[in-house]
Amino acid sequence: MGKVYLVGAGPGAPDLLTLRAARLLGEADIVFYDALVHPDTLKLATKARLVDVGKRNGKASTEQRFTNRALVEAAKSHAVVVRLKGGDPMIFGRAQEELDALAAAGIECDVVPGITAAHAASASLGVSLTRRGLSRNVAFVTPRAGEGQSPVEWLAVASAADTIALYMASTQAHAVATDLIAAGRTPDTPAVFIENASLPSERRVVTTLQALRSGPTPSFEGPAILLVGEVFRELSLSVMEHEAELRLAVTERCQAKSA
Amino acid sequence: MGKVYLVGAGPGAPDLLTLRAARLLGEADIVFYDALVHPDTLKLATKARLVDVGKRNGKASTEQRFTNRALVEAAKSHAVVVRLKGGDPMIFGRAQEELDALAAAGIECDVVPGITAAHAASASLGVSLTRRGLSRNVAFVTPRAGEGQSPVEWLAVASAADTIALYMASTQAHAVATDLIAAGRTPDTPAVFIENASLPSERRVVTTLQALRSGPTPSFEGPAILLVGEVFRELSLSVMEHEAELRLAVTERCQAKSA
Repeated sequence: MGKVYLVGAGPGAPDLLTLRAARLLGEADIVFYDALVHPDTLKLATKARLVDVGKRNGKASTEQRFTNRALVEAAKSHAVVVRLKGGDPMIFGRAQEELDALAAAGIECDVVPGITAAHAASASLGVSLTRRGLSRNVAFVTPRAGEGQSPVEWLAVASAADTIALYMASTQAHAVATDLIAAGRTPDTPAVFIENASLPSERRVVTTLQALRSGPTPSFEGPAILLVGEVFRELSLSVMEHEAELRLAVTERCQAKSA
Repeated sequence: MGKVYLVGAGPGAPDLLTLRAARLLGEADIVFYDALVHPDTLKLATKARLVDVGKRNGKASTEQRFTNRALVEAAKSHAVVVRLKGGDPMIFGRAQEELDALAAAGIECDVVPGITAAHAASASLGVSLTRRGLSRNVAFVTPRAGEGQSPVEWLAVASAADTIALYMASTQAHAVATDLIAAGRTPDTPAVFIENASLPSERRVVTTLQALRSGPTPSFEGPAILLVGEVFRELSLSVMEHEAELRLAVTERCQAKSA
């Protein structure tokens, strides 16, 4: 019987992988990887068979059961099995279902943590998620409701938290902002979307709850995390200042033209 | 003018450092490190001068100002300055004070995220912080109140969260459990202390809010994180089962002896 390693691939940039994860990839005989894992990370698995188990079409639950079974089967004929998941496996990663399937089959499994999107986004923005006198806590939530769950279950914790990191929220920005304001958050609370955090294709949308409530929902091609809270106010102000400068420059150019 | 890198050293185990952090340590001319950084991690800084700025005696705020100044001065005479902080720099790390000091001095700074204790503890326990149908969110809080803050400010977010990760809580376990139960959490909610997560010296205390409220506060030598929530119930049950087996074994041994 082989051993399975549930490994966090980190937020996207290949060098935000841990040393342990890199070593295990080099030792792996077979690697099951998600859609969001970087091609350069997979290159570290020099001797492994690579199996793509990224959720695509079809029912997520069916595909999850397939992955669970595939991991159990792989451990019967491979010494080192790596299950590589984007970010950290233990945050919004459905890791427990895979861990339970392996435990039920009597297969040993270790988990290697990874950098999750919220930490990568915070590092990339240069804004600490906690800050003395301004934020003493952070909530990691998702507004995407599971089966039999209320769509506002996330709101109680999010509205009480100083800083909020919202996963899988990019298509629901309007509803999220509306709910947070209704729950008592100040409309001008800064909100920042970070798409593809840590990658060269990283893109930021610095806005406010009010703007998200009344304006169009930004659209993203890659995974995007939404960060909300007063810690982002300076970032928000510097963006507004930059925009004001741009407007001034445009006005001056127009005046120069018309003069 | 040099550049400063604010780097997360991860939870403790040297191989839970990121590849980027390892590379930067190798390139560093000077490294300012905290008390919790592993000696093997510092060995990666082969050509750097090592400066210990761990908080020890004296006022934390004085020492923080010293560190801020030291980073600014170092950047004037070193090309690559690394500020190495335990865990992730942007969670309960006072990173913003250092970032602001560097920005005020016009010094460029990049942040490299690290694995924070909650993720390391979750990986080590093999229990996912989120879990379909059981936990859709996690709050990272500290019950340690800052200046001018209410000591129960953390409670609103913690009591609403499905899973709670409490930093710097080990000496306040009794008060934390009392407050959480008073705020509506079920007394038998599982609670797990993990000391020195990811290190060979890692130690776990699997308990409940009720037991923490009524029993003695466990004591720890190393840093300990307290994880609370229903996701830990199976872990809690397996510990109770193990204890029951132990008691049975002892009873049987006693009976065999007396027979």
